Amino acid sequence: VLTGNERYELAVRRSPDAETIVEVGGLRIGGDRLVLMAGPCAVESEEQLFATARAVREAGGHVLRGGAFKPRTSPYSFQGLGLDGLRLLAAAGREVGLPVVTEVMSPGDVDLVAEHADILQIGARNMQNFPLLDEVGRSRRPVLLKRGLCSTIEEWLLAAEYVLLGGNASVILCERGIRTFETATRNTLDLNAVALARRLSHLPVIADPSHGTGHRELVAPLSLASVAAGAQGLILEVHPQPASARCDGDQSLDCAQFAALAAQLAPLAVAVGRPLHDAVPAALAGVAP
Amino acid sequence: VLTGNERYELAVRRSPDAETIVEVGGLRIGGDRLVLMAGPCAVESEEQLFATARAVREAGGHVLRGGAFKPRTSPYSFQGLGLDGLRLLAAAGREVGLPVVTEVMSPGDVDLVAEHADILQIGARNMQNFPLLDEVGRSRRPVLLKRGLCSTIEEWLLAAEYVLLGGNASVILCERGIRTFETATRNTLDLNAVALARRLSHLPVIADPSHGTGHRELVAPLSLASVAAGAQGLILEVHPQPASARCDGDQSLDCAQFAALAAQLAPLAVAVGRPLHDAVPAALAGVAP
Amino acid sequence: VLTGNERYELAVRRSPDAETIVEVGGLRIGGDRLVLMAGPCAVESEEQLFATARAVREAGGHVLRGGAFKPRTSPYSFQGLGLDGLRLLAAAGREVGLPVVTEVMSPGDVDLVAEHADILQIGARNMQNFPLLDEVGRSRRPVLLKRGLCSTIEEWLLAAEYVLLGGNASVILCERGIRTFETATRNTLDLNAVALARRLSHLPVIADPSHGTGHRELVAPLSLASVAAGAQGLILEVHPQPASARCDGDQSLDCAQFAALAAQLAPLAVAVGRPLHDAVPAALAGVAP
Amino acid sequence: VLTGNERYELAVRRSPDAETIVEVGGLRIGGDRLVLMAGPCAVESEEQLFATARAVREAGGHVLRGGAFKPRTSPYSFQGLGLDGLRLLAAAGREVGLPVVTEVMSPGDVDLVAEHADILQIGARNMQNFPLLDEVGRSRRPVLLKRGLCSTIEEWLLAAEYVLLGGNASVILCERGIRTFETATRNTLDLNAVALARRLSHLPVIADPSHGTGHRELVAPLSLASVAAGAQGLILEVHPQPASARCDGDQSLDCAQFAALAAQLAPLAVAVGRPLHDAVPAALAGVAP
Repeated sequence: VLTGNERYELAVRRSPDAETIVEVGGLRIGGDRLVLMAGPCAVESEEQLFATARAVREAGGHVLRGGAFKPRTSPYSFQGLGLDGLRLLAAAGREVGLPVVTEVMSPGDVDLVAEHADILQIGARNMQNFPLLDEVGRSRRPVLLKRGLCSTIEEWLLAAEYVLLGGNASVILCERGIRTFETATRNTLDLNAVALARRLSHLPVIADPSHGTGHRELVAPLSLASVAAGAQGLILEVHPQPASARCDGDQSLDCAQFAALAAQLAPLAVAVGRPLHDAVPAALAGVAP
Repeated sequence: VLTGNERYELAVRRSPDAETIVEVGGLRIGGDRLVLMAGPCAVESEEQLFATARAVREAGGHVLRGGAFKPRTSPYSFQGLGLDGLRLLAAAGREVGLPVVTEVMSPGDVDLVAEHADILQIGARNMQNFPLLDEVGRSRRPVLLKRGLCSTIEEWLLAAEYVLLGGNASVILCERGIRTFETATRNTLDLNAVALARRLSHLPVIADPSHGTGHRELVAPLSLASVAAGAQGLILEVHPQPASARCDGDQSLDCAQFAALAAQLAPLAVAVGRPLHDAVPAALAGVAP
Repeated sequence: VLTGNERYELAVRRSPDAETIVEVGGLRIGGDRLVLMAGPCAVESEEQLFATARAVREAGGHVLRGGAFKPRTSPYSFQGLGLDGLRLLAAAGREVGLPVVTEVMSPGDVDLVAEHADILQIGARNMQNFPLLDEVGRSRRPVLLKRGLCSTIEEWLLAAEYVLLGGNASVILCERGIRTFETATRNTLDLNAVALARRLSHLPVIADPSHGTGHRELVAPLSLASVAAGAQGLILEVHPQPASARCDGDQSLDCAQFAALAAQLAPLAVAVGRPLHDAVPAALAGVAP
Repeated sequence: VLTGNERYELAVRRSPDAETIVEVGGLRIGGDRLVLMAGPCAVESEEQLFATARAVREAGGHVLRGGAFKPRTSPYSFQGLGLDGLRLLAAAGREVGLPVVTEVMSPGDVDLVAEHADILQIGARNMQNFPLLDEVGRSRRPVLLKRGLCSTIEEWLLAAEYVLLGGNASVILCERGIRTFETATRNTLDLNAVALARRLSHLPVIADPSHGTGHRELVAPLSLASVAAGAQGLILEVHPQPASARCDGDQSLDCAQFAALAAQLAPLAVAVGRPLHDAVPAALAGVAP
């Protein structure tokens, strides 16, 4: 399967039952419980973010996602709210009692982002940004490492090896779709990679069907498929009003669609022996819905 | 999703609940019951084929697959048993009471293959072999149309349009993996395509995780994932002794693995609302196991 | 470079100076003279074809191309004039004194096409149509074998091996662009493949910058590049009025553009030591321009 | 050709004859003279680097390349000499009288690298490292922007737009091969992209046939092809002893091969109307060969 030319000390599985569990607050990511991460592509405003955060928590989501620093193909596109976005995200997480994950794009921002976020996301375009991998390797925050758009599974594991070798043992692998010749979908979600990463590595593996498909109506079937293929979590884009989202509206679920998907996932998750984690109770989260 | 540049009269869905059911003997392919097609990559011998056929039937498979005319990359590779293979396949199907599917590679062979097989398979390399599509369009046998290795979903639907326009309304779409930059797997099974083909077309959609992954150990998780994504059937390579198979041994399940997979599929199929068709009872199939 | 897993008896080079020359009439394809093949994507009418044929000959082209049987993605697209197109093509070739090349799509059509054409083209979609390869292997007409849209160089050489093993020693390899993620061009002309095929094989190698780019304005620079990379010929789409062409108008040169390109190629061809073959004199071709 | 969805203010051509010339010392990159950049993949030692530098200058090269900070797929691979490498590179450049180009991988290193290098290279893996693009946009050093392994031409131009918008008008585009399904070559050099970038943009466009092919024996034909396609320069890997190179030995020319290639390029460059810049005279460079 792999080329056999590369050295692995840390990222690959040594025994069939080795399983890394990444702990974030009381939440255990990895193992035989399914985790749902959800939230908007970009933090746009307090109102948008808090509404989403409540909906995510109420529907049973476990982690709130949201982008503050956005890697955008064009310099003329919305680049995210930056530090203001980070602060909003942290506040929203506290409000609803969910840990938060957000992307960090530059080695110089790692400490700042780590102050506000529970999980540091390395985006697909930065999977081989080695100074950034080195820097998050020195952080104590868990790292969500997205597979590059055209990175092989071997390169993905070696990127994880950079972080692990840096001293950070908490790496979550995330398949988010690769670039192929197909134009009917934004990317091609590679569930072979999910199944193979589960076999090759002890690290938790999750999937991102929002970016993996690019189309709202494909998110639900590919979420189900990801879990069936072995994913131990999903990361999903949710927006109160996808039609007016400042980025990725086409692939965002609205709040009701996210709740419906969470409900649809439950029996399948049980059928494959990886039931959903318990939802955070509204009371504990200190929210009056 | 699609380019909007192409004309479709027959292959695309006109209403949300339009569903073509392809009938083969008493078996209904499409709709809300899952179908398992299984058998060896190539018919190699009476002993190999009949052993596989019995195992497929006993494990609950519904259709027996087996190649008689084999498209091989090298002229020095085993090219299949040809007419002898067809006859063995038909005999094995009768013996165990299962319909059979096999590939036809040339317009001139369509009538011959249709005499012996219940379903005509168009292989991935022939998805845009238009004279062949025209010819199976004139046949009364159902057609299993594999997506080409680098064919877009739009091209796949247009290939189906050729067959339908030729007068044959019984087309089954089969996703079998596309060619990408990834080398750890033989192909990349594109489950986006399964979900999208289900939405765009009324035709039954199945998946081939054997070719889609190229590795035996990935066949089970990707079979589960295919069904979760919306596949109404699976076509799987099964061989009594994969290590000595004359082709595709690496991606073939042995008989016990196929039975285990069928058992594993059952609860997931129920969870997604598409339970397995009933198995053919051994008595009806006239076999004393 | 190659996998080392495949057997080659005929398609690969045994010595550095082995060079197959494919003779067509008096024309020698291969070796150190450059050949230009040009003509319309599809034969549309006598007027269109004869005008193009005269322009091709006058500009110094050596072979007339034109499609009679057209492989089209959609069944609703123009499928070519068939036998009438073949006859027109043969007549136009005789009129201007140029040999003709045209595609054959079905094993059953090989004899018919061979009656009318000097070179049998196997199109990209049929590179692994093995019954067709077998059939042209039995023909005495030279074969122009296009590389498949997603075929590796190894698969291309093995496809040539099929034809050679069938008994036909006159195979011309043609790179015509592969399918990649890039959408700004129709295909990606792979000139690595031209250079590598020249090294690996003794067969003549030509390039098709019309399909390889899909855009008229890129045809000239990529024609020059193809020759510089080692191509021993070019096959180009030329149409008297590209804007009204029934297929591939966007990538067709008009007659003046083809003449300009031929003139532009001449010094580069000399600089790389592979000058253009002599043009067919108008007198010999029996045409009063 | 482009999608038409993106805004360009700076990177695209406004008139047919707009041509940006990037000046580095007395050297003019862009326009109708061909520039050769060459040197080792990585700076390994003073001896290795100075020997290469002399050979590059003597053969007519115009810019010395060499990596000090190396982006390596594996954390266990040689990561470059870092600051020591930068200093050696600058010293070698002074010694032979050539400007130097080297990669910068992190926003925090831009000032440091700009102190030692004449041109800042953004590597393929960092083409969409937006904080890095922003930072080199603030630098006064010219930027050599490699196209990403799976970046579209549109994304490449938009990455240039980031740098230009940051205030740095001196951007050189470099095509270095894209990732495709082909495994016989390391990458697929996309000369369609060279020709198209020349048409769409006023920026200088160069090619990297070393990375674009991955095989020494393909570097010469693809160098010729790149120039024929419109490249205004080449960047080539040269090593005194490729077999013992610490990285990319398979694609490195030795010094004699580089000299032979430079000689081979000269007539072709003249034939396409883009002759080589004059070589730096040995006397001016202060070297006694």
